[in-house]
Amino acid sequence: MTQRWRLTLEYDGGPFVGWQRQTTGLAVQEVLEIAIDRFCGERVTVRAAGRTDSGVHARGQVVHVDLEKPTEAERVMGALNFHLRPHPVAVLAAAPVADDFDARFSAIQRRYRYRVLNRRAPPVLDRGRVWWVSRPLDRAAMRRAAADLLGTHDFTSLRAAECQAASPVKTIDAIALVDAMDGEALDLHIAARSFLHHQVRNIIGTLVEIGQGRRPADAIPDILAARNRAAAGQTAPPDGLVFEEVRYPPQEPVMGFDGGEP
Amino acid sequence: MTQRWRLTLEYDGGPFVGWQRQTTGLAVQEVLEIAIDRFCGERVTVRAAGRTDSGVHARGQVVHVDLEKPTEAERVMGALNFHLRPHPVAVLAAAPVADDFDARFSAIQRRYRYRVLNRRAPPVLDRGRVWWVSRPLDRAAMRRAAADLLGTHDFTSLRAAECQAASPVKTIDAIALVDAMDGEALDLHIAARSFLHHQVRNIIGTLVEIGQGRRPADAIPDILAARNRAAAGQTAPPDGLVFEEVRYPPQEPVMGFDGGEP
Repeated sequence: MTQRWRLTLEYDGGPFVGWQRQTTGLAVQEVLEIAIDRFCGERVTVRAAGRTDSGVHARGQVVHVDLEKPTEAERVMGALNFHLRPHPVAVLAAAPVADDFDARFSAIQRRYRYRVLNRRAPPVLDRGRVWWVSRPLDRAAMRRAAADLLGTHDFTSLRAAECQAASPVKTIDAIALVDAMDGEALDLHIAARSFLHHQVRNIIGTLVEIGQGRRPADAIPDILAARNRAAAGQTAPPDGLVFEEVRYPPQEPVMGFDGGEP
Repeated sequence: MTQRWRLTLEYDGGPFVGWQRQTTGLAVQEVLEIAIDRFCGERVTVRAAGRTDSGVHARGQVVHVDLEKPTEAERVMGALNFHLRPHPVAVLAAAPVADDFDARFSAIQRRYRYRVLNRRAPPVLDRGRVWWVSRPLDRAAMRRAAADLLGTHDFTSLRAAECQAASPVKTIDAIALVDAMDGEALDLHIAARSFLHHQVRNIIGTLVEIGQGRRPADAIPDILAARNRAAAGQTAPPDGLVFEEVRYPPQEPVMGFDGGEP
């Protein structure tokens, strides 16, 4: 009898081709599936809430996997973390869930953070974790523009050409630009049920152009109305992006070991 | 005619033998002196506010150096950052200062932060930047103990055997244990005019033993009174330590380019 497990993952996206298995290099999915095989000898396919691109990090990616081995949550987490070393991937939490739980389709909200390091000096301790924009940004203009993205819109102008989603219409539940690192950084916090391919990176790329004065603070409505990728700004680099959290309906059972709030 | 410059540095201590030049490997001092030579052809000795150990990071190390080349602060900062690549060292600010300014001896306060990652899963995105302590710590006991370190004490029990300071008496101006990273981490913030060798790492090593219940919350007065290194706890690893800031008297001129608050 199999048991479905929900795992919460942290990873550094830098050394990987992204979440999903590819022939071009090592994927986070692959590293996790190999760790599972070493733990219990089962060759499985792991399904994730979000297929993060190469270089994109996670502090709260959620995946599900079915395992034959009867075991406890604490042991799943400990053993997988043992076998995941030395890769920069860790299981933060493991919980047994109902068979109809699906990491991708059961999700009701996804939250991302994008960090722009906005100072003259290049990043050092945050290298690979930020997008370095050396000239001062007009943060007030960026905040005015960000407010126009809230709610339901056709995001054709802000999706990647290769995006496979059936519809370009998405609903942004929350968006905020928050000063971080004593003002040296600017964080975009954004939440939606789901996102289009490159949507967050295209949004921050466009907001930064507004912050640089290359587009007006009221540019967003026209960009959205154009329904044309060329109407919006550049795709920001993956480094600054962190997949922070996935939310599921509250009835989802959480019986397992969650790593403990110390 | 020479000009004395004050430089503020950020660096990742991981790949270095520490601030100070040594025969055993690359030092931050060496990397900076080479960058200065490439910038202006001058072979100089740079003096720092604090001689950080191998693995210890900085977000606000301060150094001074005398240069013959007449130039502007913005150019000093930009050129040094150019020549410092690809080392994980950056100049955050550069300012011309009076000839009697001494990065080490003019300092009136130094501030450090030590981060303990206190969760079951190993560090991933913060690898090399934290001390991983997997079992839950009694943070209330640690806070009670930390309060006993405030003020002037003989810190013989908390200094390294090889410490060269003339006196073991130091004054802790401020000490706080602050929850960080949504409670996953615990940060020690500590400020004093100056510190003994390994003092901060010995303090956090001892506080963690108190948080683990291996010593009582009221252990600090007895540890200090013993005036014996063996009476205190372990030396915490360098990874979690960041030299955050050095303060100087307000009359110190700040005429230069400070990198800009964006």
